Amino acid sequence: MDITKAKEVLDSFERERYAYFYAMSTIELDATTVAPPETQEGRSIALGILSKRMHELTSSDELWEAVNALCDNEKEAGEIYFRRAELLRRSLADSRVVPTDEYVAYSQLLSQASYVWHKAKLASDWASFEPIVEKLVETQKHFAELAHPGEDPFDVALDKYEEGTSREYYDAYFSELKETLIPLIAKVRAAEQPDDSWLHVPYPIEQQKKLSQILMDAFCLDRNHCAIGETEHPFTGGTSSKDVRITTHYYEDMPLASVYSVIHEGGHANYELHVDPAYDYTVLAGGCSMAVHESQSRFWENYVGRSREFTDWLWPRFRELFPEQTAGKTADDFYRCVNKAQPSLIRTEADELTYSMHVIIRYEIEKMLFAGEITVKQLPETWNRLYKEYLGIDVPNDRQGVLQDSHWSGGSFGYFPTYSLGTAYSAQILQTMKKDLDFSALVAADDMKPILDWLTERIYRHGHFIKPGDVVPSICGEPFSAKYYAEYLTDKFSKLYNL
Amino acid sequence: MDITKAKEVLDSFERERYAYFYAMSTIELDATTVAPPETQEGRSIALGILSKRMHELTSSDELWEAVNALCDNEKEAGEIYFRRAELLRRSLADSRVVPTDEYVAYSQLLSQASYVWHKAKLASDWASFEPIVEKLVETQKHFAELAHPGEDPFDVALDKYEEGTSREYYDAYFSELKETLIPLIAKVRAAEQPDDSWLHVPYPIEQQKKLSQILMDAFCLDRNHCAIGETEHPFTGGTSSKDVRITTHYYEDMPLASVYSVIHEGGHANYELHVDPAYDYTVLAGGCSMAVHESQSRFWENYVGRSREFTDWLWPRFRELFPEQTAGKTADDFYRCVNKAQPSLIRTEADELTYSMHVIIRYEIEKMLFAGEITVKQLPETWNRLYKEYLGIDVPNDRQGVLQDSHWSGGSFGYFPTYSLGTAYSAQILQTMKKDLDFSALVAADDMKPILDWLTERIYRHGHFIKPGDVVPSICGEPFSAKYYAEYLTDKFSKLYNL
Repeated sequence: MDITKAKEVLDSFERERYAYFYAMSTIELDATTVAPPETQEGRSIALGILSKRMHELTSSDELWEAVNALCDNEKEAGEIYFRRAELLRRSLADSRVVPTDEYVAYSQLLSQASYVWHKAKLASDWASFEPIVEKLVETQKHFAELAHPGEDPFDVALDKYEEGTSREYYDAYFSELKETLIPLIAKVRAAEQPDDSWLHVPYPIEQQKKLSQILMDAFCLDRNHCAIGETEHPFTGGTSSKDVRITTHYYEDMPLASVYSVIHEGGHANYELHVDPAYDYTVLAGGCSMAVHESQSRFWENYVGRSREFTDWLWPRFRELFPEQTAGKTADDFYRCVNKAQPSLIRTEADELTYSMHVIIRYEIEKMLFAGEITVKQLPETWNRLYKEYLGIDVPNDRQGVLQDSHWSGGSFGYFPTYSLGTAYSAQILQTMKKDLDFSALVAADDMKPILDWLTERIYRHGHFIKPGDVVPSICGEPFSAKYYAEYLTDKFSKLYNL
Repeated sequence: MDITKAKEVLDSFERERYAYFYAMSTIELDATTVAPPETQEGRSIALGILSKRMHELTSSDELWEAVNALCDNEKEAGEIYFRRAELLRRSLADSRVVPTDEYVAYSQLLSQASYVWHKAKLASDWASFEPIVEKLVETQKHFAELAHPGEDPFDVALDKYEEGTSREYYDAYFSELKETLIPLIAKVRAAEQPDDSWLHVPYPIEQQKKLSQILMDAFCLDRNHCAIGETEHPFTGGTSSKDVRITTHYYEDMPLASVYSVIHEGGHANYELHVDPAYDYTVLAGGCSMAVHESQSRFWENYVGRSREFTDWLWPRFRELFPEQTAGKTADDFYRCVNKAQPSLIRTEADELTYSMHVIIRYEIEKMLFAGEITVKQLPETWNRLYKEYLGIDVPNDRQGVLQDSHWSGGSFGYFPTYSLGTAYSAQILQTMKKDLDFSALVAADDMKPILDWLTERIYRHGHFIKPGDVVPSICGEPFSAKYYAEYLTDKFSKLYNL
């Protein structure tokens, strides 16, 4: 196929792909925000048909030819088309080997899995979910074998979510991290904890919503292109640099839950909102990988949002909205409570210090599962054993244990490690940023624009054009290392807990 | 094509059609409720691609063959497949004669029209919208000529929105109605008006939202399958009998606006929610025509919601939510203010008595326009002249005049008359219902279930299986007549205004 034709095929495919992606994102947003509870039947029929059509589009031989023509002629293709073709070759190689009937069956399995998992979680009933997990793991292994014969299926899964990673990569990263985390968590456990009971009294939702609007402004989130909704589990959905949605969840007796959800999702949103608009509607739109995306949500949530500078800025605004609840408390109390660290059961509610331990537990479990060292049946007991061993806590039931996360029900094995890796990426990036900017002063003044611009220049605007493994080295001028994250945690929590 | 194959083709097409309809409905709902303001670019690209795909699906020769095979073999097809094929033949006959490039160009024109109209309305700038209306009318005439050569294009338009109607049909209906309306409105104009200034003070939105929830219950709207949102212009969107959304708009100084929007849209919603679930995802789902649908929204809004029995039921609940605003007022004041009738500029805010005059003005204008008796340029002056002649009021600007409705920008000429026709349908249906049910006692007790069941049995459950022109005759045992509607208005407003 000649290059002009190949470019036309690519352009046309990416537009169509965008339309289906847009439709499915909007349907998903509706489902999780405002749809009435018993409406899944029609939605699942519609999504089944739309995703089947998407699979047909991606399976086209003409597209495959076009992608290969561009990949094989880098110079003639030009760097933008070449990168688009390269990214597409990576994802099409995985999907086009799956026959349509198997693809449809898998979609139905996922739809069933989501439904069964929700019910199983509510009832804390692992047994009902177990056979589904069995099938999901089998299918993942089967798909991995189709696309990457002979490779380890868990390596395939890890690489799928973060290009260039593998068991070897994560084993090295996590073992280094554990050396810091395990003793540090033990010391914090033994230290005196701040009394945060005043942050667990009723904080009216209407006032919490006003706080969300203050945070939208504080983090430069442009309301012309970004709106906030409410869902059980907060998330960010972006369909272009001009249309990004974030969600949060308000708990009356946990105002900080929504505060840090808004800042976290706002970080994801600012990434998407600042990708070069020229990449909109192509595969170059959006963030460059799961870990790099998470590096940015965690950057804003933790390194900015949980810093003493930011909590000091937030405190008078928080007090003004909640004068009774905060009576007699100080900015110092607020900072210490925001950063209260202690082992807990639920990953999504975990503090900054213990968070990565939740990830490590999941990584180790998935690795053993894919290696056949444990069976699906043994997941709950393995889960409970590792929570006891690494975090010293007893898991009272599977709802708060092995059933807590939705990821497995979505077929996402190998996804969790990106959460921790991203946090470590941004710890290293922060050290470089501090050489260029007076980070503390900017955060203290809520002057976020220079920070946002710095990140936009180096990461956001490039969208998917850059490769995830290049991000940290290109910014920091040295290879990625876990030490910055470990040092940051050691420094911060040693001071907080007078260790 | 053999009948078994034809049925398969139909089944498969209707499911696919449903998926695209579902996607586009959800995108539209998002756009009008929660999407940030400057997000139209991506949405319009996505909708363009999805609707082009929908047009390709409907243009398939195999589908056309299947539809004809079923229509030509009624007995073998069976009544359900026959009706589905019959309905599809009617709509495909219109769409498949339009070449894809003309269809795409028209879609783009509509997208542009909507954008230009919104801006023109805000600026009260008819001149900017005029050339678009010119093109829209030309295209409508051209499409009508393609599908129905030799027929009058306005007759084609009227029949498209309400099967079996024509200029002749509506001329007869509206001339009968005008005989009652014009003198009755004149008498009401001369009568003393109730003072409703107490209904135009601040009524907090949060309390108005609580009232919406009371109304959802009062009209048996099932929250498992029906949710309420907020939009500038209230509407109902239904994608199956299990998933219907209504919207309302809250004005702080007009609590009744949202009350009657919720009841009106709730009427549309109850219709959709009670269609036989066996028809879901086929062309038999949803209401059977525009006028029949409107007959039901108006039935609940006017004949139930604005009745003395219902306002008496609502009054203590209204007072409880708004004790200060309603201090010193009585149930009688409330009833009279709810039904205050006077000529006004805006159709969507018009009272029950003058509403049909707004429709008649639009009908007469569209008829003259399509007949070439006036030009597009003359629309504003014609509009203003008729508002003066029929309602005795001066139109101060085009924003509150000829630019007020979105219909023309959506290419909908010939749609308005269904609003009035539906209201007349339900006046006649009400008279029959009253022979079977103690309507007054049921409404007074907010015992809506028997009324809903009565309508479900005769109308709702049949969805699109029944023909719109058969609805009134089959229920009432006589042809449709405008006299019930005219008598109802004469009786109600003579009493209210002591005429």
